[in-house]
Amino acid sequence: MITIAVDALGGDHAPRPEVEGAVLAARELGVRVMLVGQPGVVRHELAKHAHRGLAIELVPASEVITMKDSPTLAFRKKKDSSVHVAAKLVRAGRADGMVSAGNTGAVMAVARFGLGTLESVDRVALVAPFPTLRGGVSVMLDVGANVDSRVEHLLQFAVMGEIYYRAIFGTRRPKVALLSIGEEEMKGNELTREAHNRMKQLPLNFVGNVEGRDVFAGNVDVIVCDGFIGNVALKISEGVALLIVTMLKDALKSTLSSQVGSLLSRRAYQGFKKKIDYSEYGGAPLLGVRGITVIAHGSSNANAIKNAIRVAAELARAKMNEKIEQELSAAAMAVRA
Amino acid sequence: MITIAVDALGGDHAPRPEVEGAVLAARELGVRVMLVGQPGVVRHELAKHAHRGLAIELVPASEVITMKDSPTLAFRKKKDSSVHVAAKLVRAGRADGMVSAGNTGAVMAVARFGLGTLESVDRVALVAPFPTLRGGVSVMLDVGANVDSRVEHLLQFAVMGEIYYRAIFGTRRPKVALLSIGEEEMKGNELTREAHNRMKQLPLNFVGNVEGRDVFAGNVDVIVCDGFIGNVALKISEGVALLIVTMLKDALKSTLSSQVGSLLSRRAYQGFKKKIDYSEYGGAPLLGVRGITVIAHGSSNANAIKNAIRVAAELARAKMNEKIEQELSAAAMAVRA
Repeated sequence: MITIAVDALGGDHAPRPEVEGAVLAARELGVRVMLVGQPGVVRHELAKHAHRGLAIELVPASEVITMKDSPTLAFRKKKDSSVHVAAKLVRAGRADGMVSAGNTGAVMAVARFGLGTLESVDRVALVAPFPTLRGGVSVMLDVGANVDSRVEHLLQFAVMGEIYYRAIFGTRRPKVALLSIGEEEMKGNELTREAHNRMKQLPLNFVGNVEGRDVFAGNVDVIVCDGFIGNVALKISEGVALLIVTMLKDALKSTLSSQVGSLLSRRAYQGFKKKIDYSEYGGAPLLGVRGITVIAHGSSNANAIKNAIRVAAELARAKMNEKIEQELSAAAMAVRA
Repeated sequence: MITIAVDALGGDHAPRPEVEGAVLAARELGVRVMLVGQPGVVRHELAKHAHRGLAIELVPASEVITMKDSPTLAFRKKKDSSVHVAAKLVRAGRADGMVSAGNTGAVMAVARFGLGTLESVDRVALVAPFPTLRGGVSVMLDVGANVDSRVEHLLQFAVMGEIYYRAIFGTRRPKVALLSIGEEEMKGNELTREAHNRMKQLPLNFVGNVEGRDVFAGNVDVIVCDGFIGNVALKISEGVALLIVTMLKDALKSTLSSQVGSLLSRRAYQGFKKKIDYSEYGGAPLLGVRGITVIAHGSSNANAIKNAIRVAAELARAKMNEKIEQELSAAAMAVRA
């Protein structure tokens, strides 16, 4: 049975959604869950749910990392935090993966330095799944684990993203694209032009460059970019969504009665936020770490936590990290500096 | 009287909107317009408008650059294109500025190499104005004139963008920000961290970093970034807008009758596209060129062309290029490599 360690005290509303999500996962997905956190708090929350017979185990951790903590300081000072302990369970082989809705920077630091990176990986990458016009899901990486990527890093992101997409979405030959500012091969900056050239040589279904305008079109499955660009792209999407909904609300208000208009647009926006929020897709996996790590949104509800546990379990079942090691080693000549 | 040369054969619907826009500008703004293009075509179009007594002059150019032309080839081979001739008028001092709705790459090439860059400018920058949540306008630069910017380039963009914002929007001390992935000074990549440090030393109202999520919030006036990032940001905004409107249309359809829902959302989307489309704000000025150059959207209507002419005239009146030279020379120690 796959076992996933869940940071019970990470998210904005912890431990409520974490504990409920764990109960749902244990009941519906046949996954064993280790709930990590201050025992009194977690036990009190768990008592609210019918959990007899479910494979849920409590693992104590005395400290809690908050959203306000500096990631680096929290990583160094709060050694008995729920994230640290969850990572230790993975490291010791007691859990097959971990899920946290905590401080993203701190979780990344603990995963990267506590678990370490895979042998053939130079840089880990955070993956954001998002909905497309065609109704499917595309993923973008890196969306913020790194700030200055080299060509080799982008090549490794491409290989890891493709394996992840296959494992989670079942597509046999996912279409991999490079985010740039023109479709033609010679368009882009120094980094993307060189990366384009070398990505063609990888044993991937590389379909070339994709422009910002086509990111949400759904014509490609895996979009590779530098972490700085990916983070800007992700956050600007949130900004645009808010802007356009506000504008639409105004437009609707002036067309319908103001109450109907505002109600409609609020509902539609909530739906959109839900769709674009990666927690609905099971969180953002941090690829390249020695141990499956899935970072859920801070505001995750129980369903989002359950989905994150599902993704972590599927990645463990698919032996994603073994595949990353194999395929990156096979492509070593191409993807290493 | 300010004179603006207008490429009459640039846009997707040329020469109709160009000629009508020129007539509107001459009539309403007290601007003299030189309409540049194949004389027969332009004269035929002009005859459709009452233009007696208006300061409109026809200047012949035998060639036309299309959207399909390669910018570099068009620049080198079509020396008598309407864009080339418009630039020559500016260079000869017969016009105070030029407007084109043509092939952006070709217009940039003609402006950059035909007119040259200002003495104290290393890289020209394309500026995109866009609406904000507060109802005002912010501008972002560079959105695609360059692909690999150095720190000095970003500093020059900041100075030029600030002068442009003062000239067009009348704000005395525009708030200048740097696009990054966190508000704190040490957040960002190598380029933005160094740029942040040095931007603080400029005589500007530099308010620090702004994240992608806050680009549309309207808390800052001028947002500085590398051209690759700016272009991705601009185009991804279009993609998100299309995605969310499609989703909202579906949401509305399921709530109201499908016809009302679809009509409403189509209208609202058109309104949004109009608001986010820079042609409504008078086009995208190319700053740093020796001669005022404003690039209008290919699909510009007459009103957008008129607005672009207005912006070109205002920049000429404000002696923007002289100010850029003065302020960049004064800050020379800070903004040069």
